[in-house]
Amino acid sequence: MKPENKLSRVLIAGGTHGNEFTGVHLIKKFEQFPQLIHRSSFETLTLLANPQAFTAVRRYINKDLNRCFLRQNLEDSKLSSYEDLRAKEINHLFGQNGETPVDFILDLHSTTANMGITIIVDNYEPFNLQLAAYLNYMNPSVKVYSSGNSGRSHNSLRSLGRFGICIEVGSVPQGVLNADFVLKTETIIYTILDYLELYNQGKVPSLSNNLICYEYMEAIDYPRNEHGEIKAMIHPHIQFKDYEVLNPGDPMFLTFDGQIISYQGNSSVYPIFINEAAYYEKCIAMCFTEKRMITVE
Amino acid sequence: MKPENKLSRVLIAGGTHGNEFTGVHLIKKFEQFPQLIHRSSFETLTLLANPQAFTAVRRYINKDLNRCFLRQNLEDSKLSSYEDLRAKEINHLFGQNGETPVDFILDLHSTTANMGITIIVDNYEPFNLQLAAYLNYMNPSVKVYSSGNSGRSHNSLRSLGRFGICIEVGSVPQGVLNADFVLKTETIIYTILDYLELYNQGKVPSLSNNLICYEYMEAIDYPRNEHGEIKAMIHPHIQFKDYEVLNPGDPMFLTFDGQIISYQGNSSVYPIFINEAAYYEKCIAMCFTEKRMITVE
Repeated sequence: MKPENKLSRVLIAGGTHGNEFTGVHLIKKFEQFPQLIHRSSFETLTLLANPQAFTAVRRYINKDLNRCFLRQNLEDSKLSSYEDLRAKEINHLFGQNGETPVDFILDLHSTTANMGITIIVDNYEPFNLQLAAYLNYMNPSVKVYSSGNSGRSHNSLRSLGRFGICIEVGSVPQGVLNADFVLKTETIIYTILDYLELYNQGKVPSLSNNLICYEYMEAIDYPRNEHGEIKAMIHPHIQFKDYEVLNPGDPMFLTFDGQIISYQGNSSVYPIFINEAAYYEKCIAMCFTEKRMITVE
Repeated sequence: MKPENKLSRVLIAGGTHGNEFTGVHLIKKFEQFPQLIHRSSFETLTLLANPQAFTAVRRYINKDLNRCFLRQNLEDSKLSSYEDLRAKEINHLFGQNGETPVDFILDLHSTTANMGITIIVDNYEPFNLQLAAYLNYMNPSVKVYSSGNSGRSHNSLRSLGRFGICIEVGSVPQGVLNADFVLKTETIIYTILDYLELYNQGKVPSLSNNLICYEYMEAIDYPRNEHGEIKAMIHPHIQFKDYEVLNPGDPMFLTFDGQIISYQGNSSVYPIFINEAAYYEKCIAMCFTEKRMITVE
């Protein structure tokens, strides 16, 4: 490994969405006990990303912070909402031209969907993918989701780092701490920091190079009436069935007047983010993914 | 039954908390299909109680609407927050001195706690208790919780009616429709309306007069640090264990630095509302109840 490829600075961010308590309280814990995230070969920083939204127990104050990091928006002086200003401040601190640019960003999230422990990578960049494969090897229940096709690689907080991933855990209601998921998230953070230490030392173990990855295909909205109001719910058949196969003809939605709406596609898909609370306003009932075996090099 | 005791008007309220979607969408459904709640011996009205909070996907805009119905507050012209005004408006419409006073109020709620289908009665008023016993007889998984000792009988929306109960279902995250709980709530609403019809016809069946009732004892806060921030989570041992016995010495909380905090009381209790999202700000981690066998006459 070339010296310039070593990681010097790692950022752990939580509370990018203020009502996702798992990350917020882990950040507070790490700030109280910094030795927990100290590693010898790099500096570890922490960030409570959206403190006002956390105080208000809301995802955001004016707009979703985790959609505010497009370069053109960061450079647009006319954008001045709380989250726009906060994004610029975070970029000024940790972006590649910032005061303390970070090499790796780990952003902590939770979801009301039953996604267990999910590692989100935004592209097939080898560094992130090798890390995801390592985490899946260390804990085979960890799922890996590639959001690249959704365009999320450009506007998220983690896009500020040279590398970065998201930990998404659930089902956890907004505004709630579920100890089981807090402990699981904490464990995986330490595994990641240990991996980054191994990486810096050139000691990353070589693993089987096959990895199951769920790749974003498309977002599916709720059926809506002429006023834009939803007219159906997630069908009980698929509630909590994230990462399970949805075959043509399977029930997807149940309308309020009792009609079943089935999946009309031609091929099997693997829905995730099923019934995520924050996605009702984004017109996303679930995201279809393709289950792929990929080769990690 | 004396004629003056017959029920002439029943109100079904939903969205008293704007982010509890179960009730909101059932109210919308009933407004679209009023024949579903039509019964021959009384008039059934519906109320989307806090529409602005629903639009904002928040529990409330300024204050908790379901704590705004104390008589002295309804008569206090200085109280003018959105919810204070809305409470006065609702009282003006449906209160006992209102335009269309209602005899019975059914208020629809959801909780992030694992409380299944719970009927909340605010006191041991025989009418409400007989109804609760009937619902428990029709569906033995229905739990009955008496909140009387908590003081909730005086400031809730349902306190406006001559009689009234609350249906509380969960675990459901805020801002989410869980079809299973929507269908169960809908079923129990129809059972209630049918019961009220039988009541008006003097045909209420006589049932076994014993009922298990969970009676409010006290609210338990999270352990907090000197800044008032919580320093512990619900222990995984009792997460989702609403209505299960908590014995002296059993784990209750897990501090962020890994210490177990056990229940120090002298007698067994039955916690409910464990890890309800909306109760963090109310300083309630759970409510202890006493499990009692009561006689319904």
